[in-house]
Amino acid sequence: MTESEKVAENIAAVNLNNGSLEEDDDIVNPWNVESKSTTGVDYDKLIKRFGSSKIDQELIDRFEKITGKPPHHLIRRGIFFSHRDLHSILTLKEQGKPFYLYTGRGPSSGSLHMGHLIPFVLTKWLQETFDVPLVIQLTDDEKFLWKDLKLEEAMKMARENAKDIIAIGFDVNKTFIFSNLDYLGKCPNMYQNIIRIQKCVTFNQVKGIFGFGDSDPIGKIAFPAAQAAPCLSTSFPFIFGPAKVPCLIPCAIDQDPYFRMTRDVAPRLGFAKPALIHSTFFPALQGAQTKMSASDNNSAIFLTDTPKQIKTKINSKAFSGGRATVEEHRALGGDPDVDVPFQLLRFFLEDDDKLEAVRVAYKKGEMLTGEMKKLAIETISPIVEEHQRQRKLVTEEVLDKFMTLRKLEFSK
Amino acid sequence: MTESEKVAENIAAVNLNNGSLEEDDDIVNPWNVESKSTTGVDYDKLIKRFGSSKIDQELIDRFEKITGKPPHHLIRRGIFFSHRDLHSILTLKEQGKPFYLYTGRGPSSGSLHMGHLIPFVLTKWLQETFDVPLVIQLTDDEKFLWKDLKLEEAMKMARENAKDIIAIGFDVNKTFIFSNLDYLGKCPNMYQNIIRIQKCVTFNQVKGIFGFGDSDPIGKIAFPAAQAAPCLSTSFPFIFGPAKVPCLIPCAIDQDPYFRMTRDVAPRLGFAKPALIHSTFFPALQGAQTKMSASDNNSAIFLTDTPKQIKTKINSKAFSGGRATVEEHRALGGDPDVDVPFQLLRFFLEDDDKLEAVRVAYKKGEMLTGEMKKLAIETISPIVEEHQRQRKLVTEEVLDKFMTLRKLEFSK
Repeated sequence: MTESEKVAENIAAVNLNNGSLEEDDDIVNPWNVESKSTTGVDYDKLIKRFGSSKIDQELIDRFEKITGKPPHHLIRRGIFFSHRDLHSILTLKEQGKPFYLYTGRGPSSGSLHMGHLIPFVLTKWLQETFDVPLVIQLTDDEKFLWKDLKLEEAMKMARENAKDIIAIGFDVNKTFIFSNLDYLGKCPNMYQNIIRIQKCVTFNQVKGIFGFGDSDPIGKIAFPAAQAAPCLSTSFPFIFGPAKVPCLIPCAIDQDPYFRMTRDVAPRLGFAKPALIHSTFFPALQGAQTKMSASDNNSAIFLTDTPKQIKTKINSKAFSGGRATVEEHRALGGDPDVDVPFQLLRFFLEDDDKLEAVRVAYKKGEMLTGEMKKLAIETISPIVEEHQRQRKLVTEEVLDKFMTLRKLEFSK
Repeated sequence: MTESEKVAENIAAVNLNNGSLEEDDDIVNPWNVESKSTTGVDYDKLIKRFGSSKIDQELIDRFEKITGKPPHHLIRRGIFFSHRDLHSILTLKEQGKPFYLYTGRGPSSGSLHMGHLIPFVLTKWLQETFDVPLVIQLTDDEKFLWKDLKLEEAMKMARENAKDIIAIGFDVNKTFIFSNLDYLGKCPNMYQNIIRIQKCVTFNQVKGIFGFGDSDPIGKIAFPAAQAAPCLSTSFPFIFGPAKVPCLIPCAIDQDPYFRMTRDVAPRLGFAKPALIHSTFFPALQGAQTKMSASDNNSAIFLTDTPKQIKTKINSKAFSGGRATVEEHRALGGDPDVDVPFQLLRFFLEDDDKLEAVRVAYKKGEMLTGEMKKLAIETISPIVEEHQRQRKLVTEEVLDKFMTLRKLEFSK
């Protein structure tokens, strides 16, 4: 029985257009994330439903032991909370055997927002920690298929988004960035692996995993293979030659269906199952019931926002866990678990002690909503400003370098 | 209403796995051709069912008037019997406007057989007559998806088949040959057009046109777009630049479903509907109930067969329209319509007068089965021997030249 089949009943409950979702269940799929709870998705329940594993203290300890440095705060704080086969990747590291990182993004018009940073921030840290090659896929084909836009627009969006990603600070010598609509025409291996995968997956299977229906275009039905193909190292012969190298995928957990499908197929093609490390969702400013979305300007802090815009958005839009009046707040305390400014700090304030102090002070009512928002603004603004400084340095030439088919440098 | 929808009821009857086929209906689809009649498929009925147009005397006369030479015997004899928009192509020729030819083949292991020659023989003649560029697609991706073989084997078969095709005598300066598994990795435009087409076609539509089901792999479901894409001239920017040039497709009529689908999509993408010229099927040696098939060694005369093998096959396997005894044959005459040796002559004996004399003599009983077979052997053997001579000249270098992305020469 395959991984996808094993969780078939549970998967059905998370599918788009699937009526069998229970009243209280969170909707989590590549196209939609929605929770009825103000604290957001129930991630423990989601792990059970998806059949993944929790990142527990034992795994964190092993991670530290093998890499020789403390895990990133996004892992320590349970923001990356779930995994598949991360132990196997650590064993490879322990044995000095090669692997690579694969992550990606569905291009959006305009800038990335703060939530988009999360998988890339961890990926960058993993790349530095493991010293392995990294491939980043921009699914401009997916965007074109799902949205009412021209193919050329999707390709343009991919290039602009790639610049945002590069500005996070990836090492050009270790990173290959590609868009499907461009890369497929430059290397036959990618299309060949897509076709290999498409031979192994039936319509019934993608219907079960993604909830596709008979009236969906055949492009959507076939697309999951394009997101799966970079899990096969032979899709990048200029990096790996003919070697079958395992990969680790950092991503938000809504992307898991693609890789669950890939994990069923990979062994049939002679490859290791891709390992995964899953993040929670970055909350919308309005609250954790939905994730921050680029298509809702009010829900998101964009990487192009000015300090003034950030200040205004956090002050006026960010859902607060504080009480109705200062007096009440002082007396009863706030709720950091639903407080979006505090959640922003969980993602971006690196100092663990300070974060804990803030949490406790807010909960006790010693810290007011205005103070919490001020701290969030002071934490987020410099990150966005620094990104904007870096983004200016990413010229077309720099981008072309990242997108050039070439050998990458890595110790193994 | 689209072309595919218009004939939906009729199309249903020709689908693979479709139970609604009437007892007497011929099965005609890209994967199977079967008729209950010894004279083979009822082509007039098929034209009605497919909604195409008959090639009538008026069209043949116009063809001759515009090209200044008599139509090829394969057209004159009704072997190419059906078309879509051939009048529009003649008008383009008349006005000196550009168009191109597109044909293809699903690679097979081993050699091509005589039946495979037919669309290519006419294509070559059309190329010479019209002086236009020609693109030939080898669908190695299709073969890999449909058959139990390795991707590398499909690619190898494509190259070997391409050599057989080249040996027919195509002009390298006007012909581009490509295999999907190779070409897609060399030119992004092809994948981009495939995705554009896949966005316009739903699973419901390919289910209706090709009879795909829920348990089919997503590769099969998506494949029709790969056969459709060469109808868009922008799939070959090195030949046509950004121009939207109309195309004419010579093919056996079992391939019509692919192009019916394409004709529905092309206008939505700003292209002219591809025009088509359809051939009947080349009969199996055992009789016209099925077409000659490479997978049945006894049904086919291969381009690699020796004169002795050809002689033996025609003498011992070819279905005869003769009578049980010489006496009976002399008295009652034979039936050339079901006689496979005579059918071979219809396809390959160029002399109209001689063919008619043979037909009459056989029908009257003046010509015996042995004599008919002898004439068929004498007609086929030199064609096969000449092909083998030419085939020896097609080296890897010659093949690479045909498969190189480059400008083609043509008057317009």
